[in-house]
Amino acid sequence: MDRKWLAASLLLFFLVIGGVGFAQNAADSVLIRRLADTILTDSKAYTNLRQLTKTVGARLSGSPGFYKAEVWGQQALQDAQADRVWMQECMVPHWVRGGKDSAALLWSAGGRVSQIGLDILALGNSVGTDPKWQGRGDAGGSAMGARMSAGGEAKGILAPVMMVRNFDELEKRKDEVRGKIVFYNYPFNPLFVETFQAYSDAVRYRGAGASRAAKYGAVGVLVRSMSSSVDNNPHTGSLNYSDTMNRIPAAAVGLRDADRIAAALEHPTASDLTIYLRTGAHMLPDTLAHNVIGELKGSEFPDQYITVGGHLDSWDPAEGAQDDGAGLVQSIEVLRALKAIGYKPRHTIRVVLFANEENGGRGGRKYAETAKANHETHLLGLESDNGGFTPRAFTLSLPEEKLAGLKGWVSLLKPYGVYELIHGGGGSDVNPLGPQVGAVVGELRPDSQRYFDYHHSRADVLENVNKRELELGAVNMAALVYLVDKYGL
Amino acid sequence: MDRKWLAASLLLFFLVIGGVGFAQNAADSVLIRRLADTILTDSKAYTNLRQLTKTVGARLSGSPGFYKAEVWGQQALQDAQADRVWMQECMVPHWVRGGKDSAALLWSAGGRVSQIGLDILALGNSVGTDPKWQGRGDAGGSAMGARMSAGGEAKGILAPVMMVRNFDELEKRKDEVRGKIVFYNYPFNPLFVETFQAYSDAVRYRGAGASRAAKYGAVGVLVRSMSSSVDNNPHTGSLNYSDTMNRIPAAAVGLRDADRIAAALEHPTASDLTIYLRTGAHMLPDTLAHNVIGELKGSEFPDQYITVGGHLDSWDPAEGAQDDGAGLVQSIEVLRALKAIGYKPRHTIRVVLFANEENGGRGGRKYAETAKANHETHLLGLESDNGGFTPRAFTLSLPEEKLAGLKGWVSLLKPYGVYELIHGGGGSDVNPLGPQVGAVVGELRPDSQRYFDYHHSRADVLENVNKRELELGAVNMAALVYLVDKYGL
Repeated sequence: MDRKWLAASLLLFFLVIGGVGFAQNAADSVLIRRLADTILTDSKAYTNLRQLTKTVGARLSGSPGFYKAEVWGQQALQDAQADRVWMQECMVPHWVRGGKDSAALLWSAGGRVSQIGLDILALGNSVGTDPKWQGRGDAGGSAMGARMSAGGEAKGILAPVMMVRNFDELEKRKDEVRGKIVFYNYPFNPLFVETFQAYSDAVRYRGAGASRAAKYGAVGVLVRSMSSSVDNNPHTGSLNYSDTMNRIPAAAVGLRDADRIAAALEHPTASDLTIYLRTGAHMLPDTLAHNVIGELKGSEFPDQYITVGGHLDSWDPAEGAQDDGAGLVQSIEVLRALKAIGYKPRHTIRVVLFANEENGGRGGRKYAETAKANHETHLLGLESDNGGFTPRAFTLSLPEEKLAGLKGWVSLLKPYGVYELIHGGGGSDVNPLGPQVGAVVGELRPDSQRYFDYHHSRADVLENVNKRELELGAVNMAALVYLVDKYGL
Repeated sequence: MDRKWLAASLLLFFLVIGGVGFAQNAADSVLIRRLADTILTDSKAYTNLRQLTKTVGARLSGSPGFYKAEVWGQQALQDAQADRVWMQECMVPHWVRGGKDSAALLWSAGGRVSQIGLDILALGNSVGTDPKWQGRGDAGGSAMGARMSAGGEAKGILAPVMMVRNFDELEKRKDEVRGKIVFYNYPFNPLFVETFQAYSDAVRYRGAGASRAAKYGAVGVLVRSMSSSVDNNPHTGSLNYSDTMNRIPAAAVGLRDADRIAAALEHPTASDLTIYLRTGAHMLPDTLAHNVIGELKGSEFPDQYITVGGHLDSWDPAEGAQDDGAGLVQSIEVLRALKAIGYKPRHTIRVVLFANEENGGRGGRKYAETAKANHETHLLGLESDNGGFTPRAFTLSLPEEKLAGLKGWVSLLKPYGVYELIHGGGGSDVNPLGPQVGAVVGELRPDSQRYFDYHHSRADVLENVNKRELELGAVNMAALVYLVDKYGL
């Protein structure tokens, strides 16, 4: 072959390919701009969120609020013009707080007993202070923890407090634990720029702290809240009891109160520091709930699915606005926006409002198990459960070299705030789709700085969600779903 | 030359160069991590901001609050361990609101006159409704606008309202303007992803709307607030009167009230729509204020300066927490952090708290003029005046090809949130350093979604600043100042 001819034809080849690439990119850019335009002007995300937070409110699995949220979810998906909306049955745990939690710190100084109230929230799945709630009848150390009745309500406990900074200190001082309320004062590490890393680092004290302390005879546990806030709100969340340990009451305490307890313990003239703790928390039998699902039927591959979702349940102190009302309304908005601009997806797009994430992860597991049982093919499970903050990235469970090939996608998303596709998993609702049906999973990674100001606390209300940040998250999610639908993964 | 030898020596060359680059990068990375560590754990930014917002509060140029802020600024710079702190005299405009603004919409329907109150804020630099404040004595159209006295306070005006969507409509309907209050109902365009673009687009109605309407005989102006918020807070800000037109009163109205006026005007049964407007705003003579300056003396080039700053003045409805308390405390934190880790700057680092940005830009001009008069050499003027939100980028007034060469810097900043250096100017306080002394200028570009929820409104309070977002802005500013100090620009 003539060399010049080869060079010329190669040049032509690259020009054509480059031209096609450019034209494709331009078409994608235009379509994504149309998605953005409808979301930034006609979005239902914020109005849906207002309705969910202000008319439904808190919606822990099994609570009355949860069933109102199921109705809300079906209606919102129908209003978004889903082709089909249905409910997928799912048994969920049913934990109740059982009345208002109460706690106080008492100490002696100069011959007088003083006390201050502590702002606490019993941890999810925990047992209350009344022995009747405690799994093994006579809870460990109950002989030393004096139980007190408070006017017909759940009985409280009063016990000396022992502060530990971490599990290492607990182990070193294990002989001192019996009969005490252990206070885990492990700080949320400000040096992690991504606050979710600080959360991962600290959350083991909430998850395992009760059973680790019960092992040495503790009668209760207080945990410093996993938060970077400047206020004193306690942040709840679930714990996991070890089956081999006594189940003891456990509660989260706000950051200022945590500092107050630490200061009192370290004060030279204070003595006999005790904590009064009362919670009425307990588990009821598992109950029936539902994943709420809406879909847009695919035109070419109706049996191949792209799932996008968040979780319907939320903790009880507030409205679950960021966790995970935001993820719900963003997911519904993806469907609404695709339909609104007249896009016909090649694959079936499913929006799933998962039944139970917070204290069991049952919704996500049920959805993936059902998908497997039905031999469904899933391209992608995409989740939004990191709050409706300004978008910065997506994770995808793809190999790095594959992600590197998606630079063109990043340039399409960047005008709307996402500037990275990071190797990583989804959230706990879509992750089961990986092992069960081999789906790629991923999640929206918005800016993380404010999330733990609100997470699982009474500050998780609509007023702490910014409408435009919420919408921009939906824009990027819709754009990614479109790109996966068009090009596959 | 032997080819293999050439290849081997080239390889060696690149390894050495690469190694040096790597080692430099690693040393920079370590130093920037130390800056981040001190800022994320020991920052004074948030406590300084709390003190400024809660003990000084609003601080418009010439107001008593401004002089308290000067004292606060000197103390904060001294506490940050500046080598030297001083005051640079600067004459500033002195506008006062002159009492509480008041407005109402009145209309007839079904034979009855109804009215609703409107939440307004007189625009900065505007004149009040009492003729005694109005520049040319008898304000244009005063013959038709009935003036009303309200219990000894400034007189109000009552005039028919005429809504226009934009200047084009004003020009088309100019014959209808005389004797009316013109209501500019130009929306903040949600399609701009960067909200500052929507602001630039809309702010001309605040800036020039009064004089453009006065040209055709309007007696007052209401302007839809430049905001993307979901509330009804009015957002003030300065206007500029044309010297050749009558000065007429002008005020900003909240978004919901703006929609209410529009709905009333478009309602088929409502008639005789008038607006009552009363403001006591007026200008007093220019007065003396100061740029507050602190510096760290350079070890190698003490006569070469890197300036970093924000503006000390703030609008009066709230605390100026985001605008620009955030920029002030971030700039002071840059100095504190560099000193705290023991860094000895090669060039002199100056922190400037500019005296007057909001309604005159006098502080920045004074600083640059003085720098020029003293024949100072300035490497960089860096500003933070876009709020203390999560950082995303810096602008720098460098050519694109020069910015492309700073990719290594971007990789050093990215762990802290800045992922771009964009070609662009600084803010209005450092921009004069460009023409006056040839400095490169630039600014922090944090995420923009929430800024216009707060800007110039009563919502600009400490509670709407996130501590960590504020600190991360300071981390990136300190890192950029360090890199410029070490490598130049």
